[in-house]
Amino acid sequence: MQKHVIIVAGGKGSRLGSILPKQFTGVCGKPVLIHTFDPFVRYSPELQFTLVLPEKYISVWERICREHSFNIRHRIVAGGPTRFHSVKNALKALPPSGLVAVHDGVRPVITPGLVSRVFHFAERFGTAIPVVPVRESVRLVDHALSTACPRNRVRIVQTPQCFRSEMLINAYNKNYREEFTDDATVVEAEGERLFLVDGEHSNIKISTDTDLLIAKALLQHGKTKADFDS
Amino acid sequence: MQKHVIIVAGGKGSRLGSILPKQFTGVCGKPVLIHTFDPFVRYSPELQFTLVLPEKYISVWERICREHSFNIRHRIVAGGPTRFHSVKNALKALPPSGLVAVHDGVRPVITPGLVSRVFHFAERFGTAIPVVPVRESVRLVDHALSTACPRNRVRIVQTPQCFRSEMLINAYNKNYREEFTDDATVVEAEGERLFLVDGEHSNIKISTDTDLLIAKALLQHGKTKADFDS
Repeated sequence: MQKHVIIVAGGKGSRLGSILPKQFTGVCGKPVLIHTFDPFVRYSPELQFTLVLPEKYISVWERICREHSFNIRHRIVAGGPTRFHSVKNALKALPPSGLVAVHDGVRPVITPGLVSRVFHFAERFGTAIPVVPVRESVRLVDHALSTACPRNRVRIVQTPQCFRSEMLINAYNKNYREEFTDDATVVEAEGERLFLVDGEHSNIKISTDTDLLIAKALLQHGKTKADFDS
Repeated sequence: MQKHVIIVAGGKGSRLGSILPKQFTGVCGKPVLIHTFDPFVRYSPELQFTLVLPEKYISVWERICREHSFNIRHRIVAGGPTRFHSVKNALKALPPSGLVAVHDGVRPVITPGLVSRVFHFAERFGTAIPVVPVRESVRLVDHALSTACPRNRVRIVQTPQCFRSEMLINAYNKNYREEFTDDATVVEAEGERLFLVDGEHSNIKISTDTDLLIAKALLQHGKTKADFDS
């Protein structure tokens, strides 16, 4: 079965101490985005990649690829105003067969094991959404009030989220709504059942300088010991 | 106003690759627990500390203090079977006046700014509970089903949680219930209103090897730049 990967790096924002958007920031000698490809390629060299970038940074990325001799084949697509629009753009040229995993470009710290897991379960059940439990207490706020939420019911949702390609393409064939914070919510809006799989605690999403520091520590460690704690 | 700090390190568990419970694990040349005292002492040398330890590790801790010339004055109290019982034990000898902050021993990465914030707001409003928003999507599970939860309503709860001492002592004058996952839930069960304050994303709770690696990176960085990202 053909396996596609969409890496979404359409963000133009840089909350980090850098002029470039965070997906291009260097960590352990390479831009975040090059690290992000790595566990997918280690899982299988046969994957078909689509990378979504802000239009104005496509030439920057092409220069980065040359500088780092990064030669993994991938199709480049221009992003849209939101993540939803970016994924929708990427899906336009995708064949409606096989499986597709959608992954955030700023999540470079995942293992090939996680990639394997989402493809495996999506093939069996149609969807595979990686989640992790929270170890802290959780509250739900409503204006000035808040209420405790049983933490054993709470799951933090990660990527890569994997789907049968046809299902995801159909799901994205609608207009943007604010509650579409990930692909799972878009697919769920079609009445599809989501199959949750184990994510990885080390699978952090880089937004801030602190996150970059954490990613660096995890990537350095990962060089010697990849699947140390999922 | 007198200010007390209870550091709760009653856990005997070690999911880390070490024989000692995780609060004693060395990071950046010192046990986690010594790092944990540091931001409080930097906030004010006048704080009154109570440290809750598993009874069988009290002598281990005393030896650690001698080895590391750790001479911050603190009262030691034996822990109980749960965090609730540990805090309850610590409160027994506390005067019912002033403020008390309760902090997890395995949260060594906080700033003096956070300590200041919880004391400041607890003095004004009676309670101060540090929370951070989540940046990922969130789902609530119920057996095999899950539903999306609006992430802008979700807050992850941290420590130090600060209270008027009398309020916390009264709140703990009851029996343990399973939903008491932190001090806020115990106080809330008395009908008290909780005042939420900004926590810090870097305030991680060490449970696994990955967490220890992250704590190390953050503590190393903190040596040169303390309040880099809250």
